[in-house]
Amino acid sequence: MNSVEEFFNRVITVKLPDDRESVDIIDQTLLPNEIKRINVSTKEAMWDAIKKLRVRGAPAIGVFAAMSMAVLASEYSENDYDSFRKHYREDSDYLATSRPTAVNLFWALNRMSSKLDTLSDKSIGVIKDALFDEALAIQEEDIQISRNIGEIGFGLLQDLKQDGEPLGIETHCNAGTLATAKYGTATAPMYIALEHGWAGSDMHVYCDETRPLLQGARLTSFELSNAGITTTVNCDNMASILMKQGKIKIIFVGCDRVAANGDAANKIGTSGLAIIAKHYEVPFYVCAPSSTIDMATPTGDQIPIEMRDPDEIRSMWYEKPMVADGIDCFNPAFDVTDHDMITGIITEKGLCQAPYDKAFRDQGIG
Amino acid sequence: MNSVEEFFNRVITVKLPDDRESVDIIDQTLLPNEIKRINVSTKEAMWDAIKKLRVRGAPAIGVFAAMSMAVLASEYSENDYDSFRKHYREDSDYLATSRPTAVNLFWALNRMSSKLDTLSDKSIGVIKDALFDEALAIQEEDIQISRNIGEIGFGLLQDLKQDGEPLGIETHCNAGTLATAKYGTATAPMYIALEHGWAGSDMHVYCDETRPLLQGARLTSFELSNAGITTTVNCDNMASILMKQGKIKIIFVGCDRVAANGDAANKIGTSGLAIIAKHYEVPFYVCAPSSTIDMATPTGDQIPIEMRDPDEIRSMWYEKPMVADGIDCFNPAFDVTDHDMITGIITEKGLCQAPYDKAFRDQGIG
Repeated sequence: MNSVEEFFNRVITVKLPDDRESVDIIDQTLLPNEIKRINVSTKEAMWDAIKKLRVRGAPAIGVFAAMSMAVLASEYSENDYDSFRKHYREDSDYLATSRPTAVNLFWALNRMSSKLDTLSDKSIGVIKDALFDEALAIQEEDIQISRNIGEIGFGLLQDLKQDGEPLGIETHCNAGTLATAKYGTATAPMYIALEHGWAGSDMHVYCDETRPLLQGARLTSFELSNAGITTTVNCDNMASILMKQGKIKIIFVGCDRVAANGDAANKIGTSGLAIIAKHYEVPFYVCAPSSTIDMATPTGDQIPIEMRDPDEIRSMWYEKPMVADGIDCFNPAFDVTDHDMITGIITEKGLCQAPYDKAFRDQGIG
Repeated sequence: MNSVEEFFNRVITVKLPDDRESVDIIDQTLLPNEIKRINVSTKEAMWDAIKKLRVRGAPAIGVFAAMSMAVLASEYSENDYDSFRKHYREDSDYLATSRPTAVNLFWALNRMSSKLDTLSDKSIGVIKDALFDEALAIQEEDIQISRNIGEIGFGLLQDLKQDGEPLGIETHCNAGTLATAKYGTATAPMYIALEHGWAGSDMHVYCDETRPLLQGARLTSFELSNAGITTTVNCDNMASILMKQGKIKIIFVGCDRVAANGDAANKIGTSGLAIIAKHYEVPFYVCAPSSTIDMATPTGDQIPIEMRDPDEIRSMWYEKPMVADGIDCFNPAFDVTDHDMITGIITEKGLCQAPYDKAFRDQGIG
């Protein structure tokens, strides 16, 4: 096993063990201080793993939920389809209550249920195998999407690489292996570079710590450094000096939703990073599976911004609160990066550049 | 006493009590969770107050050190000038060891010592009074500088104010009353507005939390809200969405050092904030006592950037580290804002606009 595969084996967020009796996850609540893999085999433990954010990231939650249902169903004692399906639906509805805002959780559970609905004429043994196959297909499709994005991003890295110098890369939040089935989206170019034979020291990735939830500090720097990539954490407000000092040659970020004109909603701070990158003429790329491109939304102005609990800024992580009681904190979860600030949007189908609506349609999106 | 004076009486960082037997400071290490004033009367407690950052901010440290020396000297039993001066120099040298990088500490101690040197023909009683007078003069000069900056900034606020709407203002770090003798620099426009009769609700100040040391979250929001000003804390990476949403009409920041061409070194994050402000066409002002303008430094490129301990990012304030062991953190204390990003630099002598070297010379600086 080469070192990249060894890394993924250790750090990949969701795996189906060979015995198929549980789902094997890395407990992300313990990161970055402890790497602990746990085997989750009961529906209560599965519900809890999603609820407590032991597994997080939209694609990773989807894969986990699908594998969880396949594992649970494999133990059912029912021998007729209708009883089996009733039991299955009860467990699926139960898992769906674990995180009511996780769209990808419902998407994966619905896809698994729809699969089951097509199998009414099959034996229970065949059905059980088919559910595992469907869960593994969900996983494999996400891996393939990330791999494609990574290959395109790697081409950009190759163009920028200069002999003898680590290539400076910046990323924001965690759009990494910990959030997906394998390569991540914003991290895929770096992991694919390793698979193509680059050394970890051929790159130097600066991870914005990403206040207030610190996904960059806790998660992205953890996974990249575990993969052997040279990694440094910086506060979000240090992006300007990093670029001024020439340390950053390219920026990759993930995204939650892209409007038809290329405006991209992503973790709070992304839009400011893009404006600073444009000022310093550093190329800024959004890594976006085509499923995140929403042609029904004309511009970013139509994307609602989730507002979150002020205590995430005031007191989360801290020994004692850092903002006095009674003072309000402004805590939007996302912001929208104007398409004019984006050098390119990388989908699994190719690199899109302005005008984005045309580029998306040329890829058959929408 | 009106409410502004009542506020300063409560929160002002350094005061000389009427009995002149101690220096009265707010213990900033307890902020924002506890407001505790302490009377410091021994040289050991004075040394400790500077060392432990109970008092911080260059002007505030200078005022505190000067008042401390006057208080200590007032208790000396020596009756001849040479013995008195020897005792004084020992205490002054001792206080100077409390924070070896605090330039304003040495400046204030040197000014007090120089004053003492001019008094060799005076009685010990006259000398003791003169040292108090010099300390109070240092305090009063800083108050006057801040007041002038505040009056100029207040003029800008008046120009932007629209009836019935709180005026949105953003600031970074703490260039406030807690760092100075009274009005702060970046906060002076807001406090002067209160003195001119504005209500606290006529303004809405957004305080960047200012990672990694959180001066905006802990200190600036504390002092502004205590003065009755509508105050909100935001993470540094939220400046872009705040400006995009039209919440910010003007930005005031402090500075540590300004080059002859107007490039301004200030707390890390300032230069990114200025770039974002320029993008959204939000006016960006640097509040700079003329003593911070260094005409011998041609541009910001000649200003060295202090690098600080990575643990300030990794583990400070937290219950447990947020960045895994062995991962590097990039922690520059300051950055340099390019003069092209600055709408104006406000000194106590007036508003400077580009070309800055000419504007500074017109004010008799350098």
